[in-house]
Amino acid sequence: MKDMDLELYAMRHSLAHIMASAVQRLWPEVRLGIGPPTDDGFYYDLDLGEKTLSEEDFARIEKEMYKIIKEDQAFVHSDKSIDEALQWAKDSSQTYKQELLNDLKRAGTTKASELDADELGTVIAADSDAASDSASFYTNGDFTDLCRGPHVESTSKVGAFKLQRVAGAYWRGDEKKAQMQRLYAVAFATKEELDHRLKMLEEAKKRDHRKLGKELGLFTFSPLVGSGLPLFTPRGTILRDKLNQYSQQVRAEKGYQRVHIPHITKTDLYKMSGHWDKFGDELFLVESQESSDSFALKPMNCPHHTQIFASEPRSYRDMPQKFMETTIIYRDEKTGELHGIERVRAATQDDCHVFCTTEQVGEVVGELIRVAKEVYETLGLPFDQINLSFRDDSDRYYGDATLWEKAQGDIERLAKENGLDCRVDPGEAAFYGPKIDFRIADAIGRTTQTVTVQLDFVQPERFGLQYTDAEGNKQRPVMIHSTLLGSLERFLSVYIEHTAGRFPFWLAPEQLRILTINDNVADYVDEVTTILDEVVLMKPLKFNTLRYSVDTSNESLGKKIRNAESMKIPMMLIIGPKDQAAKEVSVRTQDGEQKVAFSELADFLQDVQV
Amino acid sequence: MKDMDLELYAMRHSLAHIMASAVQRLWPEVRLGIGPPTDDGFYYDLDLGEKTLSEEDFARIEKEMYKIIKEDQAFVHSDKSIDEALQWAKDSSQTYKQELLNDLKRAGTTKASELDADELGTVIAADSDAASDSASFYTNGDFTDLCRGPHVESTSKVGAFKLQRVAGAYWRGDEKKAQMQRLYAVAFATKEELDHRLKMLEEAKKRDHRKLGKELGLFTFSPLVGSGLPLFTPRGTILRDKLNQYSQQVRAEKGYQRVHIPHITKTDLYKMSGHWDKFGDELFLVESQESSDSFALKPMNCPHHTQIFASEPRSYRDMPQKFMETTIIYRDEKTGELHGIERVRAATQDDCHVFCTTEQVGEVVGELIRVAKEVYETLGLPFDQINLSFRDDSDRYYGDATLWEKAQGDIERLAKENGLDCRVDPGEAAFYGPKIDFRIADAIGRTTQTVTVQLDFVQPERFGLQYTDAEGNKQRPVMIHSTLLGSLERFLSVYIEHTAGRFPFWLAPEQLRILTINDNVADYVDEVTTILDEVVLMKPLKFNTLRYSVDTSNESLGKKIRNAESMKIPMMLIIGPKDQAAKEVSVRTQDGEQKVAFSELADFLQDVQV
Repeated sequence: MKDMDLELYAMRHSLAHIMASAVQRLWPEVRLGIGPPTDDGFYYDLDLGEKTLSEEDFARIEKEMYKIIKEDQAFVHSDKSIDEALQWAKDSSQTYKQELLNDLKRAGTTKASELDADELGTVIAADSDAASDSASFYTNGDFTDLCRGPHVESTSKVGAFKLQRVAGAYWRGDEKKAQMQRLYAVAFATKEELDHRLKMLEEAKKRDHRKLGKELGLFTFSPLVGSGLPLFTPRGTILRDKLNQYSQQVRAEKGYQRVHIPHITKTDLYKMSGHWDKFGDELFLVESQESSDSFALKPMNCPHHTQIFASEPRSYRDMPQKFMETTIIYRDEKTGELHGIERVRAATQDDCHVFCTTEQVGEVVGELIRVAKEVYETLGLPFDQINLSFRDDSDRYYGDATLWEKAQGDIERLAKENGLDCRVDPGEAAFYGPKIDFRIADAIGRTTQTVTVQLDFVQPERFGLQYTDAEGNKQRPVMIHSTLLGSLERFLSVYIEHTAGRFPFWLAPEQLRILTINDNVADYVDEVTTILDEVVLMKPLKFNTLRYSVDTSNESLGKKIRNAESMKIPMMLIIGPKDQAAKEVSVRTQDGEQKVAFSELADFLQDVQV
Repeated sequence: MKDMDLELYAMRHSLAHIMASAVQRLWPEVRLGIGPPTDDGFYYDLDLGEKTLSEEDFARIEKEMYKIIKEDQAFVHSDKSIDEALQWAKDSSQTYKQELLNDLKRAGTTKASELDADELGTVIAADSDAASDSASFYTNGDFTDLCRGPHVESTSKVGAFKLQRVAGAYWRGDEKKAQMQRLYAVAFATKEELDHRLKMLEEAKKRDHRKLGKELGLFTFSPLVGSGLPLFTPRGTILRDKLNQYSQQVRAEKGYQRVHIPHITKTDLYKMSGHWDKFGDELFLVESQESSDSFALKPMNCPHHTQIFASEPRSYRDMPQKFMETTIIYRDEKTGELHGIERVRAATQDDCHVFCTTEQVGEVVGELIRVAKEVYETLGLPFDQINLSFRDDSDRYYGDATLWEKAQGDIERLAKENGLDCRVDPGEAAFYGPKIDFRIADAIGRTTQTVTVQLDFVQPERFGLQYTDAEGNKQRPVMIHSTLLGSLERFLSVYIEHTAGRFPFWLAPEQLRILTINDNVADYVDEVTTILDEVVLMKPLKFNTLRYSVDTSNESLGKKIRNAESMKIPMMLIIGPKDQAAKEVSVRTQDGEQKVAFSELADFLQDVQV
């Protein structure tokens, strides 16, 4: 709710109720799950028994919704005791609401806000301060729903909407529970905003990374290997490699050094770091059949990296130590939450960890901010928003308050110095340190969180890390976690959709294709490829040799061009007898066609900015 | 036994008995495990109860052994029925022998050679062809041991030996069983050979990769992460990276393309490939807490790679498909078998898989042989032996015999064409295809298997892989597995010991260090580093930028040189006021010191062959 206008939130929330009312009118036996607002509309999880909703049903539901809107029903708030509420759920056969209410009852005086916000926060409100438990309801017309609000005044005040799609969703995201139908809609305050969004969604559909990933031959999934475990083909692997090389190159220039760790560890490491208590049940556990050790697949790299820092005595002269490693982390995501390469079980992080003195925090953070700016400018993905998650006055933060003050001061100053438009969120810091989050905006209007810079005062303490200062005293270093692209898979899912698969020249798996007009130019093509073999691009990625192919098939030139275009190859060199005679080539890009002299080809390619 | 002279084998084997006799004279309560010959001597596993052997005991034992040798006792063979043998074991309190005999009894008419050769093959002989089971014994003096021989005639005919070390060893390699003391000795036919070997061992001790790994700061282990799971520091990671880049570069030049897979898979993949039945109990199993899928950590990459091949339709025009990937495989090794980075649980393989037509097998294999030769010549590790594991006439091989004949013919011809000194081992092929194994010889006289090229007619069948031939018919490809360095960790363990940590210039983590004589040369050092920053080595690894540091500390030049030497840095540039005045630098390497003009420094470095 933080990032959404309260009015818009109420509209979308009210529309969710209206949609549920409409569905109930059409299928009175419907049992309702939860129905929260989303970033661009709302959804409701529905159990319709045997009835499977399809796009054909959308018009009927929308028609019924418009009726309810026209009826201008008031949204009326009421409170019931939990027991009354349970009776209501039972009487109306709302078994899912009953389950939520039972959980609420069990939770007793626990604040609702501390329960799982996804499912409870949006629909239930227990009066947490009152001694007796109660639940909040809203009624419009003959429809009543367990809900903490807020809502608009009446059903006519809801803006513009359109049903969008229906998808399977497990009740409470748990694949062991009932499968429901999640009915999605887009909703905005005005028709113009709605139309704009629908157009974006249409474009997004065309750019769906799963579709383009297949068409461009970038990655694949195998049912034998399992969902959420992508396999990258040669073309997709080039994208991964070049992105990662660039991400590591810019940091290597700042003194970051590559390290290497295995993907498993004894669980002892996480018991020491504290992750075991917090995330133990979200880990993939590894069973050794040969030893009694208890292992886990790593869901993060920091505890391993502390052990490299700790492997030798460090002096203030060795600080900061800057480690980087791009390596897969494993997260035991629910099957239902996996989505293409956006959300996977094996995510490759371009991670880095810095161990530095308190005095060095500002310098390190400033460097990381500048690097992040450079990388995202190169990729054509401007930062949309930068959030500084700082502490508040409560006592839930670990470490010396002066240390926090200094670090937060450094961060805020550096963000400003680098021209970043930041928002400070007091109270949003993790207990172990303040954080910077960067969000990017893509070509189809979505924003995604990418870079993070997270300070950590806790792990150095837990692992007893130390260095010797100039006076010979032992000091505790500060640890800084940061990724640039984040998960390569998630970044690629966004970048494929952002570019519609039309990658910049330096990054494209196949940068250039030679198309011959006939076989008589074979010798000239050899001369041209000799040039291509010698071209080494130096910007933005250094030592980037040219990736090209030659299409000498018997197809017509038109067909060859269409083939190359369908693979979104940034540049074609068309070579016919006339080009050979004139010692030139025809260079064809998205921007059109031009002749380039053979003698100037190498220089021309060095400077390509396609 | 295959690779050892039978006479030498009998000598070592006899010495193992003599050592056991000597130990029994000194500690009559000793219970004996097994005592086989080794590559350079023999050992015996001893249970001495509370008594812990130490090097101080070696002289006493050796003295007793010399007595027995002087007594010139004959080795007398006898057979006992299994029951008689069991009675003997009971009477002499040889509980371990009793266990072996019980196993032998249970195995019934099973051939002893099919039992675990490590423990049974060398000490037990059941007369496998006879209808009644029996066990073979040898007696010298008052010492009798369960043993199938062969032995020398008498205790005086045993050559030269020396007790070497004692180490803990679990009975039958099982950490759940009793821990015994394994007493090792070196033994050769002549005193000269023994002395040569002892000198080598002395040298090997100095070069121990675990010792050098620590001294040179290459890798570390953490008890929190676990044994067999090395963490590589920045220096060690450079070694890994440069070696791997080179290994992949030479294959990329032959059209190999990088792919990327996760480290886990549903066990379904191995059920399909057949690995589950064969190796299921040697896998690390992965438990998902969020889904009911059953996963495993991959102990090999081939089944994953088949799924990339299978991800799109392939035509004969697309063949061969050459995938390469350097990635960690996980093997659930027993804790007792782990050793530094030589034997680990997380081994990084520089793997590749080719999918080709039958006709292309020769071309692919020839290319891999040439690449392997090039790589090992560059690394200064000549091939010591090449084994061609071929089929015999039995029917235990999968696939068409003509296909085998052709493939084996190709392999043998190509090996000869490439000047390899090969040995054909008929009957040594895996059931799924013939294989080439390359062994290298290192500077301290050991040989290690590295490169393998393995043909596979089975996995393409099991996964139903196919391509369309020129006539439009579906055909089954052949799969070829190959690694160049094998496990990077194991290769590094050998290479560190081979080079004694003195890596070639192109590979060294820190290639060059500037040592200043005083602070007055700071500006000149800046000029020199500007040159260094522009040097890019192109051989053998392309685009290999220079890795250097500058020692401007207040230490004396002598101390600075010693520091650099202790880190085995191949080159030092010593810069003092005189060098500055003369516009030159003093280049110091293992070979001595020379002056190089500033203007020639870049060219000089490009051509370094240190």
